Amino acid sequence: MNDENEITLVDQALELIEEKKYAELKELLREQEPADINEIFEELPPDTIAKVYRLLPKELAAEVFVEMSPEHQEFLINAFNDAELSAMLNELYYDDTADLIEEMPAGVVKRILKNASPDMRKVVNDLLKYPEDSAGSIMTTEYVRLKKDFTVREALDIIRREGVDKETIYTCYVTDATNRLLGIVSAKDLLLSTLDTVIEDIMIEHVISVSTMDDQEQIAFMFSKYDFLALPVVDNEDRLVGIITVDDAIDVLQEETEEDFAKMAAITPNDTEYLKTPIFRIWISRVPWLLLLMVSATFTGIIISRFESALATLPILTAFIPMLMDTGGNSGSQASVTVIRAISLGQVEFNQFFIVLFRELRVALLCGVALSAAAFGKVMLVDRLLMGNTEVTWTVALVVALTLLATIVCAKMIGCTLPLLAKKIGFDPAVMASPFITTLVDAVSLLVYFAVSRQFLHL
Amino acid sequence: MNDENEITLVDQALELIEEKKYAELKELLREQEPADINEIFEELPPDTIAKVYRLLPKELAAEVFVEMSPEHQEFLINAFNDAELSAMLNELYYDDTADLIEEMPAGVVKRILKNASPDMRKVVNDLLKYPEDSAGSIMTTEYVRLKKDFTVREALDIIRREGVDKETIYTCYVTDATNRLLGIVSAKDLLLSTLDTVIEDIMIEHVISVSTMDDQEQIAFMFSKYDFLALPVVDNEDRLVGIITVDDAIDVLQEETEEDFAKMAAITPNDTEYLKTPIFRIWISRVPWLLLLMVSATFTGIIISRFESALATLPILTAFIPMLMDTGGNSGSQASVTVIRAISLGQVEFNQFFIVLFRELRVALLCGVALSAAAFGKVMLVDRLLMGNTEVTWTVALVVALTLLATIVCAKMIGCTLPLLAKKIGFDPAVMASPFITTLVDAVSLLVYFAVSRQFLHL
Repeated sequence: MNDENEITLVDQALELIEEKKYAELKELLREQEPADINEIFEELPPDTIAKVYRLLPKELAAEVFVEMSPEHQEFLINAFNDAELSAMLNELYYDDTADLIEEMPAGVVKRILKNASPDMRKVVNDLLKYPEDSAGSIMTTEYVRLKKDFTVREALDIIRREGVDKETIYTCYVTDATNRLLGIVSAKDLLLSTLDTVIEDIMIEHVISVSTMDDQEQIAFMFSKYDFLALPVVDNEDRLVGIITVDDAIDVLQEETEEDFAKMAAITPNDTEYLKTPIFRIWISRVPWLLLLMVSATFTGIIISRFESALATLPILTAFIPMLMDTGGNSGSQASVTVIRAISLGQVEFNQFFIVLFRELRVALLCGVALSAAAFGKVMLVDRLLMGNTEVTWTVALVVALTLLATIVCAKMIGCTLPLLAKKIGFDPAVMASPFITTLVDAVSLLVYFAVSRQFLHL
Repeated sequence: MNDENEITLVDQALELIEEKKYAELKELLREQEPADINEIFEELPPDTIAKVYRLLPKELAAEVFVEMSPEHQEFLINAFNDAELSAMLNELYYDDTADLIEEMPAGVVKRILKNASPDMRKVVNDLLKYPEDSAGSIMTTEYVRLKKDFTVREALDIIRREGVDKETIYTCYVTDATNRLLGIVSAKDLLLSTLDTVIEDIMIEHVISVSTMDDQEQIAFMFSKYDFLALPVVDNEDRLVGIITVDDAIDVLQEETEEDFAKMAAITPNDTEYLKTPIFRIWISRVPWLLLLMVSATFTGIIISRFESALATLPILTAFIPMLMDTGGNSGSQASVTVIRAISLGQVEFNQFFIVLFRELRVALLCGVALSAAAFGKVMLVDRLLMGNTEVTWTVALVVALTLLATIVCAKMIGCTLPLLAKKIGFDPAVMASPFITTLVDAVSLLVYFAVSRQFLHL
């Protein structure tokens, strides 16, 4: 791998800047990948950013610009004169320009639109109308369009003429006069066919497409299912309006994964790197959830106060509370995370509610029996015999074991139910992960515990 | 999207099989994507699988075979005669054959090797030597190799001649006589250059490559960072031994994501779909962790028994235990999941230990102060005034607030430390997520609680 190389690259660049060897720096930069060059920019002192940026060849400069943080992008745009801005915009793909506009403050957006070509303004305006997370919001409109009666020779000519500005040339789209999608041809098929072949004879007509309003995460999963390099996006009337390329699909996958991890840990998602996020913003993303969960935990407190006298009669009962609550929480998280992922991957729908419930019931019973038996044995052997606690009778051990069984069953039922319900009412199932399940399961397990204690220990 | 289409496709196929309309079925199948055809196979009665499989054209049949579950693959191989097996293997990419061999029982492997070409046997043997999760284990050896003095015309001829059997033709690799990697040329550059151009003049020499032993997850992240379609894999002597394509990288990303989610919920990862996993296997993937965590929770029990008398003196103290433990657990998970993801994404290394610790300390203090204040207010207003509990004095509220502050700070310190330590000693940081952190934080928060109580309440 190249961790060491990257460090060297940044250091090397910083040294060349220090020594004002800009010609050498230019030579070094032109060979690098845009993402690596961006890492250099992240380390540059502000007063050198614009200067170093101007060393980059036009096309590479635009690619690096797309990689940059919004802060750097804004900084550079403010450093550009109108001619520079317009030249840079000219090199950007329309979808990248749309993304840029979404990130910039109003004043900067105004300047961008003023310096964009009329064509770009129109397309970007259309792209910005699609809701966040929709196919429309991640698609690009720059693809190769062919007609079905073209020959391979004509198709290759078009690619040679227009390909340089297209996001991909490896999948070409065959449309009719009304822009309806008729089929696709891969560059591979073009290369492997004779020049006189007619496109209609080699195009694939059974094309899988998505619609502009489809959810971006589901689309990303389609890339992994079908191994596509690009996927066409059509409107309500089946007209081709854009394509989504595999690199954007990967970005979506990663973004959605990180969002899900954050939600499951009760954190508001945030797309900045951990070490680059200001402390205050980390705090803001965490503290409301902690407060909310703390307040919900009040109910468990109320339940315990109600049973204060019972606990006072047999204080050893208190010692088992953490174990019961934790095991309940863990059992519930196992079920909820499993179901949340299955929903996310499209493997489970709300109408399979009872199938899921029955599965988790069986797993819960198996887990419950195993853990109850272990807990019974542990209480009798360790707490009673080894530690010699006379309060621990076999009835106490039985109460603990039975509570555990009931808690695990309830926890797994709650754990699998909540994400499905959340999905049904249009919430993100990921929010129904461990923290919320735990709070709910805590209350349930205490209620069960005290009910069972009353029954068997006559408190 | 096409959920409805898919259902229709499976239903349609099943109906045609029912009615024995095999010619129509053949016509229907030849236009479908391999992943969709596999969904049909998953619904087929066993006695029709081989029959339907034989309807598929050779190349498509091999693509569908690769999509199948190991159970179906084994079933089909046993149904094949040697000629059929050998013809099918002939269509498989070498890396897919290696994957197949890893999944099949010994007897089937023997038959596969017997029917494979000597070339395939050799390459597959080499591929199988790489450790799981390494670049070597996911790479393919079928790529387009060019020499630097070729012209574009010669290169295109090679692609036309050999391209059909290559996993990708969109990135071609330029090597010297000893197979050292000199550069890459994209099919786009070939198409956009004149036929007489020499490869050396258009190839990119600054090639980012990985080594055979590199970790597959890090490689997958490189695809997302650099937007590559393929990445070359070199050995210790910088000789090109294979390539990894973007579709394999997406599969790795998804596989690793699901593994991390499972580990974070204390479940042994398992790559079968939830609804298709036998109950017993779900149980096995969950119960050992629950047992382990239950046993660890014993320590919290011991701590509580030690303070039984104190709790008996002021029973209201027990009521705050769940809230303190849960808030500690949640604070700890927030820190641990954040750090686990940052490690996974390569944003944080062990040598940044103190930077991370200091960040989390500041976040913890901010969260702690906010929550303590809220808890103090809530205890005084709700528990004392509203519920009229006379046991709740302002000293009790202070004890709860102080414990909460200390717990949150400890929890966040533990939460950020454990994943980094795990990484350092070669464990998977993901295992250090919520469940383990919670168990540890429980014990710590109780110790703090009782220490603070003693100090202020003189118990």
